Amino acid sequence: MQRKVYDLSTPCLVVHKAKVKSNADKMQERADRAGVALRPHFKTSKCVEAAIIQTGGTKRCMAVSTLAEAECLQENGFEDILYAVPLSTSKIERCARLARAMNDFSVMIDSQHSLIALDSKNLGNDKQWNIFVKIDCNNGRAGILYSSDDALVLVNAIIKSNKLNFRGLYAHCGDSYHGTGLDCVHQVAKRTTLNVLELVERLKEESITCPVYGIGSTPTCSNPIPVMSKLTEWHPGNYIFYDVFQMTKGSCSQDEIACFVLTRVIGHYPQSNHMIVDCGFTALSLHGGGDCCGLTPGSGYRKIEGHPELKLAEMNQEHGLIRPVNESATLEFATYPIGTIFRIFPDHSCATAAMHRVFFIADESENIIEEWRPVSGW
Amino acid sequence: MQRKVYDLSTPCLVVHKAKVKSNADKMQERADRAGVALRPHFKTSKCVEAAIIQTGGTKRCMAVSTLAEAECLQENGFEDILYAVPLSTSKIERCARLARAMNDFSVMIDSQHSLIALDSKNLGNDKQWNIFVKIDCNNGRAGILYSSDDALVLVNAIIKSNKLNFRGLYAHCGDSYHGTGLDCVHQVAKRTTLNVLELVERLKEESITCPVYGIGSTPTCSNPIPVMSKLTEWHPGNYIFYDVFQMTKGSCSQDEIACFVLTRVIGHYPQSNHMIVDCGFTALSLHGGGDCCGLTPGSGYRKIEGHPELKLAEMNQEHGLIRPVNESATLEFATYPIGTIFRIFPDHSCATAAMHRVFFIADESENIIEEWRPVSGW
Repeated sequence: MQRKVYDLSTPCLVVHKAKVKSNADKMQERADRAGVALRPHFKTSKCVEAAIIQTGGTKRCMAVSTLAEAECLQENGFEDILYAVPLSTSKIERCARLARAMNDFSVMIDSQHSLIALDSKNLGNDKQWNIFVKIDCNNGRAGILYSSDDALVLVNAIIKSNKLNFRGLYAHCGDSYHGTGLDCVHQVAKRTTLNVLELVERLKEESITCPVYGIGSTPTCSNPIPVMSKLTEWHPGNYIFYDVFQMTKGSCSQDEIACFVLTRVIGHYPQSNHMIVDCGFTALSLHGGGDCCGLTPGSGYRKIEGHPELKLAEMNQEHGLIRPVNESATLEFATYPIGTIFRIFPDHSCATAAMHRVFFIADESENIIEEWRPVSGW
Repeated sequence: MQRKVYDLSTPCLVVHKAKVKSNADKMQERADRAGVALRPHFKTSKCVEAAIIQTGGTKRCMAVSTLAEAECLQENGFEDILYAVPLSTSKIERCARLARAMNDFSVMIDSQHSLIALDSKNLGNDKQWNIFVKIDCNNGRAGILYSSDDALVLVNAIIKSNKLNFRGLYAHCGDSYHGTGLDCVHQVAKRTTLNVLELVERLKEESITCPVYGIGSTPTCSNPIPVMSKLTEWHPGNYIFYDVFQMTKGSCSQDEIACFVLTRVIGHYPQSNHMIVDCGFTALSLHGGGDCCGLTPGSGYRKIEGHPELKLAEMNQEHGLIRPVNESATLEFATYPIGTIFRIFPDHSCATAAMHRVFFIADESENIIEEWRPVSGW
């Protein structure tokens, strides 16, 4: 018998396959229109099935956030994978295995320390390490400052080593998550893009060609500005699912959010004007509940589909407390009998997805047609 | 060759076995002194190995937060398991399987709705459903109000059914997590205990014997007050690992925190006065970073062992940003070369443990002697 969304045991993560495909198609179209390559980030879904959709079936050109993700993609025949976290020398052995097993595996560095370690690690068979340099465009996370001499020194050192192959520059624009409004997103996109292009020019002045240079974040790539077409690639990730926070950033509509946590009402508590659902932080993560992820505090009320009058006000490990959005209103318990199913949109889908070992994949008729199992760990 | 803590790939969760044993022993001793049974909650570790330690090898008398936990314990020969979440009627089928497979499996209810569902679900072989009634002692989460007539009505209905066996009353004192200072913990312990005892008395007046009645939370059971000896059992959970938050509540010393996340420095960023470690919210969870879990905001600086001068100030998915506690001080990068290993104590160990599929178990000489794999999902 065909299993439907409503048959699932709760809590669980449900993913709308058609929305995943549509989100992937639309991002690819934006990249195509700009004439840039798309290097989707794998960190949000961590599912091979989603990666195939994100790469249009080519299985080429992805960014990953862990070596476990890279190893999963390699085992599934993917190529051109960038491990997009500053390389830790303690992970060089596993990176070497991937570099030997693949035609095109790249690591990312932002220090002489990593460069020296790579330069002394022979891959054999005249194989070179493919290296992206992580650039900090005043985004305040990782990377070597785009305007610094250190950036030129680092790229020059890569170019000079016969064991290393300079693949390009990689910049994240995480600060596009701060501030509000599309103007703010556009400002960050413009500044970051111009910073990257400035470094590309400075390299050119030293006769160094930069094969690849890109920026990435879902807000900037969902609403790209013209100057971003001067880059060679973009690397957004979250767009495959989107979430409430991205909606507040103007990256997507609510209808484009491709996943939700399914939960049921398990208790009514008139004495404290709340009800409880069987979904706590182990199913949703805590993201969105406050100023705890560097994102905008209270970016949403942890939106419950079709119930703008309700909010998920608190979470414990396995309970969620639902209250009226208007806390002085009395909850109409009869409207939500025990057993009522709610769909809660994640505030941060990367974080919510990371709480689940299986994603239930639904078609447009709410049939469960597949189960995807994300790679986990590091 | 013996693997040491320092050999582990980062990030990962390391558990000190001797501290787990010591935490378990001390809690058991407190319960013994009070003359109450200890029903440890499984939700924090979710590892069979820890459950064996928590039950002193008897494999009896545990509380669980998911059916996946209950099924794991049942498969490993445990008995007297209480599924301590208000029963969802959608989960009755799985509960029935457990009730039939075990001599002593209990469910918890706080509504007529669940009672009716259980009463109409035959276990066969004259087997009765073992039922705890969840009591709300003005703690504002789940449960039927201790002082209400509904509580008496519900217990009476259980007593009257020949399919149901009244096991007792269960109260959580989650509000012992609010407020500051041991006085506050003691006030909550006193009020909750007296509320439970009051209901026990009211039941006695109706000639109903309550076999089991208890309260539980790690703060109250780590610093019990005399009146708690009038209960028949306690059911704390977090104490098996403890954490920074429990330390701030006076439940434990830093030396008693039994687990930490191991991480390495992977980047220095003088331009923004921070360094990055390879540990983000997928390894630590977001707990403790703000007022996001109903707990005290900023309860710790996400403490880094041996480095009171540093704090984990922000987390992304796979990065943690370390800054000086005194943000106007310049970070002494040379003191923490790339590759430096840090141990970060969890703010909320239940949440941090839930992010890991394997726990690395260390002995007192820092040898990795076991790997524990927690049960996951629901």
